[in-house]
Amino acid sequence: MAGVCGTDLQLLEGYADFRGIPGHEFVGVVEETSSPGDDAWVGKRVTGEINIGCGRCEWCAAGVKEHCASRAVVGIRGRDGAFAQFLSLPAGNLHEVPDAIDDQTAVFVEPTAAACRILEQIPVDRRARVAVLGDGRMGLLAAQVLRIATPDVTVLGRHEHKLGIAQALGLGTGRSESTVPDSGRFDVVVDATGRPEGLRRALEFVRPRGIIVMKSTVHGDAALASWPIVVDEVTVVGSRCGPFRRAIELLASGAVVVKPLVSRVAALHEFESAFADARRATKVIFDLERKP
Amino acid sequence: MAGVCGTDLQLLEGYADFRGIPGHEFVGVVEETSSPGDDAWVGKRVTGEINIGCGRCEWCAAGVKEHCASRAVVGIRGRDGAFAQFLSLPAGNLHEVPDAIDDQTAVFVEPTAAACRILEQIPVDRRARVAVLGDGRMGLLAAQVLRIATPDVTVLGRHEHKLGIAQALGLGTGRSESTVPDSGRFDVVVDATGRPEGLRRALEFVRPRGIIVMKSTVHGDAALASWPIVVDEVTVVGSRCGPFRRAIELLASGAVVVKPLVSRVAALHEFESAFADARRATKVIFDLERKP
Repeated sequence: MAGVCGTDLQLLEGYADFRGIPGHEFVGVVEETSSPGDDAWVGKRVTGEINIGCGRCEWCAAGVKEHCASRAVVGIRGRDGAFAQFLSLPAGNLHEVPDAIDDQTAVFVEPTAAACRILEQIPVDRRARVAVLGDGRMGLLAAQVLRIATPDVTVLGRHEHKLGIAQALGLGTGRSESTVPDSGRFDVVVDATGRPEGLRRALEFVRPRGIIVMKSTVHGDAALASWPIVVDEVTVVGSRCGPFRRAIELLASGAVVVKPLVSRVAALHEFESAFADARRATKVIFDLERKP
Repeated sequence: MAGVCGTDLQLLEGYADFRGIPGHEFVGVVEETSSPGDDAWVGKRVTGEINIGCGRCEWCAAGVKEHCASRAVVGIRGRDGAFAQFLSLPAGNLHEVPDAIDDQTAVFVEPTAAACRILEQIPVDRRARVAVLGDGRMGLLAAQVLRIATPDVTVLGRHEHKLGIAQALGLGTGRSESTVPDSGRFDVVVDATGRPEGLRRALEFVRPRGIIVMKSTVHGDAALASWPIVVDEVTVVGSRCGPFRRAIELLASGAVVVKPLVSRVAALHEFESAFADARRATKVIFDLERKP
C-alpha cells in the first residue's frame, strides 16, 4: 500500500521537476535482496526511509542523508517511488513494521515521522499554546504529535468534516479564516496548509518571539511581506523528514491515531479519481495488489 | 545629531503608515525634565531607547517593551522622532554617552544595539562561517558585531566603495550577485539588504540547517518560494532592537568602528538631498544645530 501525500500533488504542479514514479509513503513485503547479507529481510513487512545519500559527504558521515547534496529521494528526486508493484531501496533504509500496526496505518509511518521532526527541532513545553494551521492529513498528524508535549493544541481549518475528525481525536479546533482568538496569539504555529500563503497566514496567528514551523513543500511563489518576521522577532523553522522509529512507537501505542484519516483505498488504475479525491480528502491510499 | 536609517527610507515608501517626525538614531543634551526626580539628567549627553511601552502588559512587566502591543516607537509609530531640535522621551529610556564616544559615533548606538541583538538570539561559535548580505550601514555594523563571535565573517555586497570600507575594517568581502563560493554555503546569513528580495537571496547562500537572520524592515511584498526553507530545514530569525549598554561598550572600546561609515553630515533644511544621498551612501547624519 502507498499513501498520496501533499507533496505528490505538488509534484504534479511541477514541484521539484520530478519525472518518474511518485509515492514515498508505503508498506510492503521484501521479496528479494541483491546482497546475501540482507537475506534476513526477505518476507518481512517493512516501510522505509526515503532519502538515499551519496555515502561519502559530511552529511552522510553524520548520518543525515536527507541533507546530502547528491541524495536521491524515493518518488521525489531521482528515484522511482511506491505507486508501483515493486520498489527497490537500500536495506539500511528499511524499518520492520510490528504486528500492532496494520497496513493502512503503516502507510502513515513516513508522514508521522515528519510530524515528529518538529519536536526534535523546537522546544515545546507543557504550557505552550500551539496552533496547527491546516486541517489536512499533515495538520492532523502534527497536532497529535504536538499534543504529546502540551495539552493546548488547536487545529485551525476550514473544512467541517476534517475539523470534525480533529474534534473526535480530542483536539481543539477553530476556523482558519477567523482572526486571532480572544485568548491571544499562539506560542507555536505549524503551517500545514500545503498552500503558498501558509507562511503569511501563520504570521497573523503567532505571538511576538513565537515560532512558526513550516511543514509544507509548495510549488511556486507567494507574495510575502517579510517585515512582520522582523518586527515581531518571529523564528521560522523549516521541517522535513523525521525519525521513523519514534513514529512506529507512536502508531503502535495508539498515541497517534490515523484510521479516521483514511478516506479512500483505491486501486492504482483508479489514479485519476484517486488524485482528484486526494485534493479534498484527508488520506487516499493505493492498494497496489488490488486488480482492475 | 540624528542618523538616517533604512527604516526612515522605508517610512517614506509607506512602511508602518507613519505620520509625524521621523528619526530614531540620535544623540542630544537633556534640556528639561517634567519630573523633579529626573533632574539629575539635565545637561547630560544622552541617546535613548526608542520603544515606549504601556507599562501594564505582560511584555512591559518582563521589561520587553519593544513587543508591547500598545507601544509607541520614536519616529516610527505613534511618536515624533529625532529629526527636530527637540525630542521628548521617558527618562527610563535614556543612556548617558561616555566621553570616549563623540557625537557622530553616538548616533550609531541604536543601530549597533540592533546588530548586537543577533548574538542574543542565535548561537555563533568560533568555527561558524557567517555571511552578511548587504554592504550598507546595517551590514557593516552587523558584520563587525558578528566578528566578535567568529573570525569568519564575509560581507556580500555590490558596491565597490562600501566593500572597500568593509575591507578596510578587516572584514572578508564578496559580490552578492555571485553564486555560492567554492568554500560552500554559510552557517549563518544575515539579511541586511534592506530589499524585499533579501530573504530569497539569503536562502541561496545558507547551508542546510543553517540560520538566516533578518535585520531589514522592508515595505511591501516580495515573491518568495518557501519550499527551500522546508527542504533545507533553514531557521529564519527576525531580529529588531537590541541592548544599548552593550552597543555603548563596543563603540567606546573601538571593537565596532563607525566613522568610516559617515558619508555626509547635513543640516536639516538639506533634507531632500540628504535623503537622496542616504539611498546610496552608508550613513547620512543630520546636525540639528547647523543653521541654514
